[in-house]
Amino acid sequence: MREPDSITLDDVVAARKRIEGAVPRSPLIRMEGAGASDLYLKLENLQPIRSFKLRGADSAMALLSPGELAAGVYTASAGNMAQGLAWAARRRGTRCTVVVPDNAPQTKLDGIRRLGADTIALPYDEWWNILATHRYPPLEPARFVHPVSDLAVMAGNGTIGLEILEDLPDVDSVLVPFGGGGLSCGIAAAIRGLKPEVKVYGCEVETAAPLAAAIAAGRVVECTRTPTFVDGIGARTMLVEMWPPARRLLAGSLVVSLEEVVAAIRMLVERAAVVGEGAAGAAVAAGLKGSGDVGRVVCVVSGGNIEPAVLSSILAGGVP
Amino acid sequence: MREPDSITLDDVVAARKRIEGAVPRSPLIRMEGAGASDLYLKLENLQPIRSFKLRGADSAMALLSPGELAAGVYTASAGNMAQGLAWAARRRGTRCTVVVPDNAPQTKLDGIRRLGADTIALPYDEWWNILATHRYPPLEPARFVHPVSDLAVMAGNGTIGLEILEDLPDVDSVLVPFGGGGLSCGIAAAIRGLKPEVKVYGCEVETAAPLAAAIAAGRVVECTRTPTFVDGIGARTMLVEMWPPARRLLAGSLVVSLEEVVAAIRMLVERAAVVGEGAAGAAVAAGLKGSGDVGRVVCVVSGGNIEPAVLSSILAGGVP
Repeated sequence: MREPDSITLDDVVAARKRIEGAVPRSPLIRMEGAGASDLYLKLENLQPIRSFKLRGADSAMALLSPGELAAGVYTASAGNMAQGLAWAARRRGTRCTVVVPDNAPQTKLDGIRRLGADTIALPYDEWWNILATHRYPPLEPARFVHPVSDLAVMAGNGTIGLEILEDLPDVDSVLVPFGGGGLSCGIAAAIRGLKPEVKVYGCEVETAAPLAAAIAAGRVVECTRTPTFVDGIGARTMLVEMWPPARRLLAGSLVVSLEEVVAAIRMLVERAAVVGEGAAGAAVAAGLKGSGDVGRVVCVVSGGNIEPAVLSSILAGGVP
Repeated sequence: MREPDSITLDDVVAARKRIEGAVPRSPLIRMEGAGASDLYLKLENLQPIRSFKLRGADSAMALLSPGELAAGVYTASAGNMAQGLAWAARRRGTRCTVVVPDNAPQTKLDGIRRLGADTIALPYDEWWNILATHRYPPLEPARFVHPVSDLAVMAGNGTIGLEILEDLPDVDSVLVPFGGGGLSCGIAAAIRGLKPEVKVYGCEVETAAPLAAAIAAGRVVECTRTPTFVDGIGARTMLVEMWPPARRLLAGSLVVSLEEVVAAIRMLVERAAVVGEGAAGAAVAAGLKGSGDVGRVVCVVSGGNIEPAVLSSILAGGVP
């Protein structure tokens, strides 16, 4: 198993060949009315499962042998990677099981089941333990696909970076929601390999900002974590194996408030007619604030899976 | 001035050359979880002004002489064509005025002003009279651009048809919101010219369905009209000049209920992570019902300008 920090541009290019024809290219649109900023949105929420996760899942599954595929796959996920792996498994006729934290939102559970995967619910700490240890023995010999630090998953995510550079060659910075770092580091591996002057930032919400905490401490530390509707990012701590690539590849962490995430989600509806989930809102909020650098900024709208009741409340002017 | 019914594929191809480089190509995505249907969404709501209207507006303005551009342009619109013309005028530095009905939604008025156009509000009947007579003398010598039946506007709209056939060559039918007919007939002119076997339907909401009424009567008639949040389609009657092309080019009218429009708008959020306005919801609702033909169906998501409060209410389970 290669370490996440060994990821290179070549890995991303190879992943692109593996997923080509299966995973759609997502559109990049300019966000109107964003004030002085020249903001672009990379719309991964328009993917078949409404998030970028099918890129990494398909990239990883494409490396499995027929025997491994026959034994099935599993992952641990709050929802989007679950749908990503279920989607990639369904198209290969492979059995897929997903371990979910017992507070996973209904929208995401429904999506997993519609894609034909089984689910097992565990308390949050036990669920997190799977991410830390990379296994859940009761499901073996099915193959575990780590949602964040599997190198093939990161490389699949990184194909977003290749598309951004093709569609907007003079981009100055790319703002990416930072959950575990698999998305931001994958994208950064591609972009830094091709255009090292382009900065890639991780974006976090202040209710839980483990990357910012690690950068401040110079090592992985626990941070305070207040649960909110933003469920795709914001763990209590970083996975230790993700700190080396995050430190090497990312320009920093941009931290926004929950209110700014809410305003960004509302702005996505009103100005771009798209639905972004909390994690996506963090990247857009950072872009709207003019965090990071001036110039041409791409915000990665990582997903659009948000509870209808939460979005309803945001559109009514509230902070859920 | 050429009659709308004289529109041909050649007009659409010429319009495409005029707007190329200015108007983005919109994405076509497959709608997941639409049951047995094989439904695709043509996402015109992702255009810079969140609707298709910039295509026709830019196509028409590209034909004006420097002297005509210096005199300015105006239109009569409930909002989307207003933004379309304002957008096309702004990029040429041309003055633009929009006559709006005095019940136009605030979202759309804000959008018009952000684009630098002036607005004049008139009572609905006086406003409609401009559409019927093709002029509003107090604004002359500015040039009137008719939002529906101007042939260059229809041809610009028709470029959507070219893109659909390129992206999904084996499409069976295309469902288009029917407001005045400028969008559906433009698209049908392109598609019928290239693939006459593909059916193009106009989609209406039962609270006001002037195309269905005209088809039933064999001529343009008044229909009953109940005002709802669906403001982009549903006039009391068709423009007389649009009946000949509608009869010639469209396969029929698919009428859906207001409740079906609401369900479709909700489905767009939950399954496709995009925001559709009422008119767009009518086309998607018709597709979800399996109206028209079986097979591969494209629904034109004509725009995404919906009041946040209305969308909030829909997501909370209500019918606004």
